Amino acid sequence: MVGIIMGSQSDLVVMQAAADVLEQLGVAYELNIVSAHRTPLRMVEYAQTAAAKGIKVIIAGAGGAAHLPGMVASLTVLPVVGVPVKSSNSIDGWDSVLSILQMPSGVPVATVALNGATNAGLLAAQIMATSDVALTDRLIAYKQSLHDKVMDSVAALQSKK
Amino acid sequence: MVGIIMGSQSDLVVMQAAADVLEQLGVAYELNIVSAHRTPLRMVEYAQTAAAKGIKVIIAGAGGAAHLPGMVASLTVLPVVGVPVKSSNSIDGWDSVLSILQMPSGVPVATVALNGATNAGLLAAQIMATSDVALTDRLIAYKQSLHDKVMDSVAALQSKK
Amino acid sequence: MVGIIMGSQSDLVVMQAAADVLEQLGVAYELNIVSAHRTPLRMVEYAQTAAAKGIKVIIAGAGGAAHLPGMVASLTVLPVVGVPVKSSNSIDGWDSVLSILQMPSGVPVATVALNGATNAGLLAAQIMATSDVALTDRLIAYKQSLHDKVMDSVAALQSKK
Amino acid sequence: MVGIIMGSQSDLVVMQAAADVLEQLGVAYELNIVSAHRTPLRMVEYAQTAAAKGIKVIIAGAGGAAHLPGMVASLTVLPVVGVPVKSSNSIDGWDSVLSILQMPSGVPVATVALNGATNAGLLAAQIMATSDVALTDRLIAYKQSLHDKVMDSVAALQSKK
Amino acid sequence: MVGIIMGSQSDLVVMQAAADVLEQLGVAYELNIVSAHRTPLRMVEYAQTAAAKGIKVIIAGAGGAAHLPGMVASLTVLPVVGVPVKSSNSIDGWDSVLSILQMPSGVPVATVALNGATNAGLLAAQIMATSDVALTDRLIAYKQSLHDKVMDSVAALQSKK
Amino acid sequence: MVGIIMGSQSDLVVMQAAADVLEQLGVAYELNIVSAHRTPLRMVEYAQTAAAKGIKVIIAGAGGAAHLPGMVASLTVLPVVGVPVKSSNSIDGWDSVLSILQMPSGVPVATVALNGATNAGLLAAQIMATSDVALTDRLIAYKQSLHDKVMDSVAALQSKK
Amino acid sequence: MVGIIMGSQSDLVVMQAAADVLEQLGVAYELNIVSAHRTPLRMVEYAQTAAAKGIKVIIAGAGGAAHLPGMVASLTVLPVVGVPVKSSNSIDGWDSVLSILQMPSGVPVATVALNGATNAGLLAAQIMATSDVALTDRLIAYKQSLHDKVMDSVAALQSKK
Amino acid sequence: MVGIIMGSQSDLVVMQAAADVLEQLGVAYELNIVSAHRTPLRMVEYAQTAAAKGIKVIIAGAGGAAHLPGMVASLTVLPVVGVPVKSSNSIDGWDSVLSILQMPSGVPVATVALNGATNAGLLAAQIMATSDVALTDRLIAYKQSLHDKVMDSVAALQSKK
Repeated sequence: MVGIIMGSQSDLVVMQAAADVLEQLGVAYELNIVSAHRTPLRMVEYAQTAAAKGIKVIIAGAGGAAHLPGMVASLTVLPVVGVPVKSSNSIDGWDSVLSILQMPSGVPVATVALNGATNAGLLAAQIMATSDVALTDRLIAYKQSLHDKVMDSVAALQSKK
Repeated sequence: MVGIIMGSQSDLVVMQAAADVLEQLGVAYELNIVSAHRTPLRMVEYAQTAAAKGIKVIIAGAGGAAHLPGMVASLTVLPVVGVPVKSSNSIDGWDSVLSILQMPSGVPVATVALNGATNAGLLAAQIMATSDVALTDRLIAYKQSLHDKVMDSVAALQSKK
Repeated sequence: MVGIIMGSQSDLVVMQAAADVLEQLGVAYELNIVSAHRTPLRMVEYAQTAAAKGIKVIIAGAGGAAHLPGMVASLTVLPVVGVPVKSSNSIDGWDSVLSILQMPSGVPVATVALNGATNAGLLAAQIMATSDVALTDRLIAYKQSLHDKVMDSVAALQSKK
Repeated sequence: MVGIIMGSQSDLVVMQAAADVLEQLGVAYELNIVSAHRTPLRMVEYAQTAAAKGIKVIIAGAGGAAHLPGMVASLTVLPVVGVPVKSSNSIDGWDSVLSILQMPSGVPVATVALNGATNAGLLAAQIMATSDVALTDRLIAYKQSLHDKVMDSVAALQSKK
Repeated sequence: MVGIIMGSQSDLVVMQAAADVLEQLGVAYELNIVSAHRTPLRMVEYAQTAAAKGIKVIIAGAGGAAHLPGMVASLTVLPVVGVPVKSSNSIDGWDSVLSILQMPSGVPVATVALNGATNAGLLAAQIMATSDVALTDRLIAYKQSLHDKVMDSVAALQSKK
Repeated sequence: MVGIIMGSQSDLVVMQAAADVLEQLGVAYELNIVSAHRTPLRMVEYAQTAAAKGIKVIIAGAGGAAHLPGMVASLTVLPVVGVPVKSSNSIDGWDSVLSILQMPSGVPVATVALNGATNAGLLAAQIMATSDVALTDRLIAYKQSLHDKVMDSVAALQSKK
Repeated sequence: MVGIIMGSQSDLVVMQAAADVLEQLGVAYELNIVSAHRTPLRMVEYAQTAAAKGIKVIIAGAGGAAHLPGMVASLTVLPVVGVPVKSSNSIDGWDSVLSILQMPSGVPVATVALNGATNAGLLAAQIMATSDVALTDRLIAYKQSLHDKVMDSVAALQSKK
Repeated sequence: MVGIIMGSQSDLVVMQAAADVLEQLGVAYELNIVSAHRTPLRMVEYAQTAAAKGIKVIIAGAGGAAHLPGMVASLTVLPVVGVPVKSSNSIDGWDSVLSILQMPSGVPVATVALNGATNAGLLAAQIMATSDVALTDRLIAYKQSLHDKVMDSVAALQSKK
């Protein structure tokens, strides 16, 4: 199972995409709100109990001084995927990107693009697929569908001429 | 008492300046190493017990994805002064500045300049001086000494002519 | 009492939040417009007389080349909290952030996030609470309310499922 | 097995750290030079055959306009960990960070910090550990060793007093 | 002939301007969608066969981690003009600019301004004009028309007085 | 007369170049240390009395949160030329550049390049030359000397062949 | 007389403010469109003949790769005030700011804030006032009016209470 | 023939690489110093007469507020390749990159990476090769040599094991 957490309910508009792609790929997930700054003990407990609850990968999204992904990573050895969210009053997203990406040696966070929740979901699925052949096949089909959509737009462009 | 903490021993070369200025101003302090990412539970305990130990202000320095000041601030209502440290592999210091400064509404960190540990010490002293007239007087004298040093350099410049 | 000042009336839309949170926490404050660049002598007088008027902490907000917080800090030993305001024609807020944050050694400004006036108010309250147990209790309650709001959103999320 | 690739031999000084930490954790790896821009077909072949060779995770490091991690990710469903390398003539590392991080929806790269090869190795190990209990235990021990080193430095600091 | 390619159909709103200016200058072109990340093998084939199809210059536009121009350049010796497209979720366009501009030694991309597709078309025409006197004359006339439009606005400004 | 001021003696290594070029052009100047943050009242007095002392243009250099040029400009109607100095602990010079450049409407500072003290001196001379024909002639000769030095390097390059 | 020039008619919406403030201060000016890139010879002629036409100060506004202010400055010894204009497709204004500010030693441009045309007009007036006592008086009155407007907003704020 | 120009002799240490790669590819070139800011009329003449002298492509390198490539492009319809040079007092190279890259619609500059003179030479050769089959063959061989050097480093890496 993939655990998707985010710092506040307002992040859901971005983070839902992670759930959607996992749904589409048939990967179980749970969605939760865990704030590093407003519920720090809840965050500690979430991170410490995640593995025992059957979570294999954690996706954490946060904006501004985004500490949730890195702090969760400090409390578990599960892979943590960080999604920098471009919140209001963000300085163009640089704050959340750098707060998540620039982790010190010893505590990695797998950072994806600004607002890149779809890719966070895909990355979690790719991680789980390292020991799940059927999921690998669904990921290959997903990749093929990306290719097919491009070819559809190629055809549409040609037919316009 | 002021609690000075930092994410790693390598930050001491920067953070010592906070201790030095507190020493000079006659403000008690303790110096400690508390890593948000490598000793998260120690950090939780430090933050939760600081007030009871008599700490009035916490100074926290960290580099890169600098989560220590903000996480400590999430766990106490003591004022937390954050010092962005320019560590190796930092992206020009922007990472630590933004990770400390851009805290979400509800959990402030009093951020000072990059490597600004002296100012962190002074700010902690100013905070303590809000209820300590003698310390206020020592701060006024310190401010006067800054002025006097400038006037000395003015005199030196004049005499060179 | 907390003195809240800002460089221009247009900053009020951001800075009002500092007053609101102080109101909520039962901390006295006064609100004033003091422009570093258009009323520099008024600024000098404000800074020099603040302590005698019973002000314990000054909150100063300004945008662009934001000199108000730092100049006030140069003229008083009261703690000064600086709020970088993202004004029109700002270069994405970087100008006000760096103009306030990067103070030279000897003259600290406690900088909060871009447009972070609520946090400025909270920080001022935390500073005053270092010698006010009742205020400390109200800050603890405020912190608890942040936690509770997250838990409400957690419950709302669960019930949607 | 983890496949570690890099764009040029000059990246080895940074990327060796990924191999070292995998060695330490008992995870098999192979090290290779695959240039997106100078050997593009070799890169295509590498990415397309990696899974069949038993590679479970790919670590790709590159500097400047760093296309290697993203292009490999476009050619495989294995998880790809990207290491932005700060090369000479880099614009402070921003080029490699953004070229690796900002992947479009559908093709994630798990990006780590600038020059963060140790974390890339750890992340690869964490990914493999999602189906390897013994490796999970070694990662827990590694995490403990990080904690212990901090406590050693705490002790060293105390004894200095 | 000039080959204009772009990473996705959504880039067409920007890239059409390259086609328009080539049309205006009487330079043959073809427009195509070739995604580096979603159709990497199609990209390889496009780049490898372009010269044989009579393409003399390739214009490639892409956003975010924009790998298309640089990867095409790695697979052909035709001059490649890169257009950084400011896509949604871009970090202010910096990502596409740096991903295209900062190519390593040996594999140049002729980068134009953010969203500068008109200039990409002009540059392609200038390149083809190095061996086409008639096209050179049309470019001189185009340059004259830019001058004339400025003089028209000068006249309009004068007449307003 | 041109008044050259700087925030600290350490800025002299940069600011001396302004004096040197004024010397070379036969423009009278005085050099002084005036710190906005450490001697604010001295700064107020300097700015308010400059015109009466016969100063026609003020050159002010400062680093970090560089408030000196803008604050002096707030206190006089003399033209103020600002020199952003790249001080230690500067964030790559961005702080001083933005603190000096981004002045609010009503209070201009004529900003020159980072560490551009020679250009500040030249600009001050150009300003004084608006009412001094002989100085204008010396500026024309200076400009010619720049041209001549380039032509010397052209000759040197040719002779190498 | 002040010469106000701009790279294109679209800059007029920003640059008009320079004319307005000069009008208000009773300083003669002329407004013109001179494009560095589309009418380079017109620019050369403008710069070379400006002094002879009685122009004392040139204000030049431009966006993007803004070469107009610096190129004009290379062709005259009149003081040139540069206004970085935030044009469409600008990278947040950084391009015009840096293209105007970072002039090489020997050729200064007096740069004002992004879109700071009012300040450019004021600076031109301040320069002309160095030899015009009546204009100096009008500038002092203008400065007083800035102060008075702040005091009006102070009064408005008080009366709201 | 390719015309290589640069703003000052100090740029030669970077720009020589363009000449070297053209030499290696058997493309004729001439090297010259042409300063936009110190010899503007020489620049105008150079640009206007380049085509008649048999120059097919111009490579222009400059640092800081780098106006040379764009101004030359405004005066000729030859393709102009711009090399941003990281000069002393540059703001990390951003100034020269943006001054060259962000040209307005109508006047393209083919920008290469910071200090990317080798790529500028290669790009000029690729442009000339659009009408020179033998040069195309030499470029293909050059590309092959890049590939071969990677394979040599692969072999060296393998043999170390």
